[in-house]
Amino acid sequence: MTKLISHEIDIVKSETSKINAVDFDNLTFGRTFTDHMFICDYENGAWQTPRIIPYQPMTMDPSARVFHYGQAVFEGMKAYKDADGKVWMFRPEDNFNRINKSSARLAMPEFPKEYFFKGLTTLLQMDSDWVKPGKGNSLYVRPFIIATDPAISASPSNNYRFMIICSPAKAYYTDKIKVLVAEKFSRSANGGVGFAKAAGNYAAQFYPTSLAQKRGFQQIIWTDADTHEKLEEAGTMNVFFRINDKLVTAPVSDRILDGVTRKSIIQLAQDNGIEVEVRPITVTELKNAAKAGSLKEIFGTGTAAVISPISAFEHAEELFELPNIDNSYADTLKDTMLNIQHNLTEDKHGWRYGV
Amino acid sequence: MTKLISHEIDIVKSETSKINAVDFDNLTFGRTFTDHMFICDYENGAWQTPRIIPYQPMTMDPSARVFHYGQAVFEGMKAYKDADGKVWMFRPEDNFNRINKSSARLAMPEFPKEYFFKGLTTLLQMDSDWVKPGKGNSLYVRPFIIATDPAISASPSNNYRFMIICSPAKAYYTDKIKVLVAEKFSRSANGGVGFAKAAGNYAAQFYPTSLAQKRGFQQIIWTDADTHEKLEEAGTMNVFFRINDKLVTAPVSDRILDGVTRKSIIQLAQDNGIEVEVRPITVTELKNAAKAGSLKEIFGTGTAAVISPISAFEHAEELFELPNIDNSYADTLKDTMLNIQHNLTEDKHGWRYGV
Repeated sequence: MTKLISHEIDIVKSETSKINAVDFDNLTFGRTFTDHMFICDYENGAWQTPRIIPYQPMTMDPSARVFHYGQAVFEGMKAYKDADGKVWMFRPEDNFNRINKSSARLAMPEFPKEYFFKGLTTLLQMDSDWVKPGKGNSLYVRPFIIATDPAISASPSNNYRFMIICSPAKAYYTDKIKVLVAEKFSRSANGGVGFAKAAGNYAAQFYPTSLAQKRGFQQIIWTDADTHEKLEEAGTMNVFFRINDKLVTAPVSDRILDGVTRKSIIQLAQDNGIEVEVRPITVTELKNAAKAGSLKEIFGTGTAAVISPISAFEHAEELFELPNIDNSYADTLKDTMLNIQHNLTEDKHGWRYGV
Repeated sequence: MTKLISHEIDIVKSETSKINAVDFDNLTFGRTFTDHMFICDYENGAWQTPRIIPYQPMTMDPSARVFHYGQAVFEGMKAYKDADGKVWMFRPEDNFNRINKSSARLAMPEFPKEYFFKGLTTLLQMDSDWVKPGKGNSLYVRPFIIATDPAISASPSNNYRFMIICSPAKAYYTDKIKVLVAEKFSRSANGGVGFAKAAGNYAAQFYPTSLAQKRGFQQIIWTDADTHEKLEEAGTMNVFFRINDKLVTAPVSDRILDGVTRKSIIQLAQDNGIEVEVRPITVTELKNAAKAGSLKEIFGTGTAAVISPISAFEHAEELFELPNIDNSYADTLKDTMLNIQHNLTEDKHGWRYGV
């Protein structure tokens, strides 16, 4: 059981804001940060008094275990501002639960729920000017935990740092993307950490993705490591296939991330009367559907992009281009999601969380 | 091609040494560091002027990609001092080659050979008092590279930091260890990063290992993720099995690290007239050999431990204890290795590297 050292947050406010120097119409994703950050250190077996301080570099020992053994997990969330200036988040409890699941798999301590939500809401209230209204605008919120223990023995750290940093964002991917189906490289193993938002899962994707990019593809659709037949994720997103009027997506497993956007999209599709099959789908089935003309859409889902439509895929040197269609599920579902997130429509599942 | 900005190292010497405060008879592995460290930053597409400065904490942005996406690789090496006070390393070129292989798989830039060896030798010359003579004593040398770019988009960093830090060490594992054969968890996937010394590979092992430790085992013997039948590595070490008078070890692959100690032990065994088979070995074969009494020894090999004898393994709730034997291969080969490393014997393969 995690002990709470304090029920208060120590706050040091920034003397000036950087916000006027920011061009909100020309943001590069993940490069601009707000005025404050949330920090909570784990020492002597307990999470210490949480702090909010001006966003700033921090001091780390070169032997900190995060640098050597990748003991690091994170979450991606977004805050939105409605027309009345109220700030909302989307299903943050799912992110809270998942960061603790990720931590457990990496032998890291659970973070207390009270600190998570108090830190999150206090930070967002302090930096609320950074959340711009308007559909597509958001403040990307990045909770993460790193191993700070200054020791290079290959064992779990004694000390950790939980942080939340925030970065204003516009839409993540704007154009449709082309993807390559993995035939050799893989993202995760049965019994591995693919389901966790573990830092090392991402670095492992960069090289295969860079090879795909050199060939004109933006992302990879990952397949299972055994047979390279089962379609699993697209880049850092979950992936959906529309075959005729049905949506198909792979079940979550210890290889596949339990995406918050993924499960929200499944629910919203069902709400809209779209049949959704959560089942393994193979490369062979996908290619046959493409050849038969029954493959109508492919799209990725994730917090950063919400929905990222995919216009073409290649496998075994065969390129399949999808036709443009009117009333795509991708467009409809993305719009429905954004309307809920931006408080423009009814929220019948209770997903919005007022900050 | 990597451009070299400078052929010199900028050196700032420590004004005082911490060495007199160190109890060299009671060292905890990886917690004590020498007076200096080597740093080289990668910026604007080139490795900048390398530096040696006093060992100290460093400043990092909270958004540095290493914290979020695990873009980090490392090496483990050792320096030894002979009776004449001369400092030696062991096959450092293999570590140099491997860190660049690891980097390539994580989409990180290659580090220049000239910088690597100049940094390594200069640093070891400056901190040579920290290398204590005597068999079993060594200075553990940790080169590593981390992604420093302050941006949380999930793509390779533009900026990196290469460092070498050093930590005095005594023998790593002292007692024989008991191991659990993995039946559910796995370490790496085909097409993944298991062959690389990627930071994330290590964090992924901590939780399964902690479960094994709670049951009285010190390490896990990892098996392939598909069938959990093929024996692959023991904890962070390569693993050898002695069946009657033959040594068996798994071939390296994209799942298995190409260990410097592993290949040296293969060579030394062959030099000593021991037959070595490099081939897949299964759990079934191992259990049958244990039952038949033909399984004589199991040991792990790695830089930190050199050779770590294993006294028992458990699989599917069956515990197999190995008998104590005289003239074990583990003892003989470890002694042969240490004699070469400490310049106590002929080095017919040219493995020693004078600093």
